Amino acid sequence: DYSPSFEVGKQKAKVCMTCHGEDGISNIDPYPNLRGQKVGYLISSLKDYQTRQRNSGLAILMQQQADALSDQDIKDIAYYFSVLGTPKEEE
Amino acid sequence: DYSPSFEVGKQKAKVCMTCHGEDGISNIDPYPNLRGQKVGYLISSLKDYQTRQRNSGLAILMQQQADALSDQDIKDIAYYFSVLGTPKEEE
Repeated sequence: DYSPSFEVGKQKAKVCMTCHGEDGISNIDPYPNLRGQKVGYLISSLKDYQTRQRNSGLAILMQQQADALSDQDIKDIAYYFSVLGTPKEEE
Repeated sequence: DYSPSFEVGKQKAKVCMTCHGEDGISNIDPYPNLRGQKVGYLISSLKDYQTRQRNSGLAILMQQQADALSDQDIKDIAYYFSVLGTPKEEE
């Protein structure tokens, strides 16, 4: 367990970018932008997919993605998108 | 049924702003920013709360809120937040 870093998160987030955009702005209307989103919200959303507490038709792909993530992966990826596009990105 | 308008959406979205921010930027880490979010994603999220396809602990408040909304309310509110903070807001 370590503090999440932007660069580690960016590497782990490559797979997310296919749908959610390289810059965290989705190109696909049903899929959310993640850029600058709240870190706590991103973490709880991924955990809700893991525990099947999000289970509509569109959730199936995200359930599979979330299943492949460790708790540390989730922290890193959530940190990355929460910082992306904000002043903290420059630090 | 009518095309959603920014001003109608803004009026209907007053209750959302308590948690999601007057400017669509949440002040509370577990709650998402909605500013400039994809309209299709906002609509499907609200419908998922109505149908209990989002049902984690944090979802209970949103289930109650979504239950109070008509399909037209959902379209109006989703349109408002999707446009907020984007160039379309000026039109």
